[in-house]
Amino acid sequence: MAKRGMLIVLSGPSGVGKGTVRKAIFDQGGNDFVYSVSMTTRSPRVGEENGVDYHFVTKTEFEEEIANGGMLEYAQYVDNYYGTPIKYINKTLDEGHDVFLEIEVQGAMQVREKMPTGVYIFLTPPDLKELKNRLVGRGTDSAEVIEKRIETAISEIKMMENYDYAVVNDEVELAVERIKDIIRAERLRVVRVMPEYNEMIGDLGK
Amino acid sequence: MAKRGMLIVLSGPSGVGKGTVRKAIFDQGGNDFVYSVSMTTRSPRVGEENGVDYHFVTKTEFEEEIANGGMLEYAQYVDNYYGTPIKYINKTLDEGHDVFLEIEVQGAMQVREKMPTGVYIFLTPPDLKELKNRLVGRGTDSAEVIEKRIETAISEIKMMENYDYAVVNDEVELAVERIKDIIRAERLRVVRVMPEYNEMIGDLGK
Repeated sequence: MAKRGMLIVLSGPSGVGKGTVRKAIFDQGGNDFVYSVSMTTRSPRVGEENGVDYHFVTKTEFEEEIANGGMLEYAQYVDNYYGTPIKYINKTLDEGHDVFLEIEVQGAMQVREKMPTGVYIFLTPPDLKELKNRLVGRGTDSAEVIEKRIETAISEIKMMENYDYAVVNDEVELAVERIKDIIRAERLRVVRVMPEYNEMIGDLGK
Repeated sequence: MAKRGMLIVLSGPSGVGKGTVRKAIFDQGGNDFVYSVSMTTRSPRVGEENGVDYHFVTKTEFEEEIANGGMLEYAQYVDNYYGTPIKYINKTLDEGHDVFLEIEVQGAMQVREKMPTGVYIFLTPPDLKELKNRLVGRGTDSAEVIEKRIETAISEIKMMENYDYAVVNDEVELAVERIKDIIRAERLRVVRVMPEYNEMIGDLGK
């Protein structure tokens, strides 16, 4: 039996550039993990392809999937559903392939509950890191702007606590490399390779 | 204040090639972590340099360090002491630099107790992975040889359980790359970067 694949979840606050980073990872090619295409009820935009960018379905179809327990996670934004069908993911993991998800923070927390052994990566805006430097700097921002930024930073840091890794999206290419480092390293974790070794020993009749 | 550095411990069964891999890592240069030179009472071999390969000391000096609680870990092999002085490591970590240790398994377990937040990497022989293939293969080995190999494999797998990562030493260059992936990924772990973010928020007066 193939070793079960590893689930990799990329998430982060909205506007941080998750989609851009994910696209850069898969545009590079040569990856030994596969992208799980999300399902949505929104209409395809120009250039978007069914089954590549999203699985485009009707509202009725989506709600049937929910009712049948077929969604690993889902959420509603602006009257449309977005979510991850569980079937494809389980099939792919069972075949021994690693699966990459790029989803919103609410969805990521739903997935974490159901699949706690996944790798959870939080993409952070560079300004979270640079915030301090900027604020203690020349002081050209109004008190209100500063206050708002601090609040946002705090809420994002609180989200980060629920993830395994924090990757700063300062440059897309750097963020991509960091995510690939994480995936390579996670495959070497003793908790992940142990079952394989134990099975080997078991097979040997001990 | 500088963020405290990360301790990286490379260990593994004797004969697995820890020293060769460590040497390859540092011969490459350009590393953003430093090697902690061990202390020993054995005589320098031809070409070995004091303070580079080992800190060469007398038995009395070594035993004084032990008595003063100055050793992070130590062990005796063939009448000689080998160990890691704690002073240099703490100083280097406090300065914000990551420290790399290459030590025997007994020592690694002593260090893990004292410094549980370190990164513990177990180097495994390739034959542990290949064992099954070889044993279920042509069957040219005697029952005794097979039994012995299985026993060794089991004891090594049991050791592995105490580590975070398992790196197969099939090729030195590959093992080096895997270890560097691990180090880069570990620096991005939320548990490691969180204090820095929290400090930043704290500094902002929240």
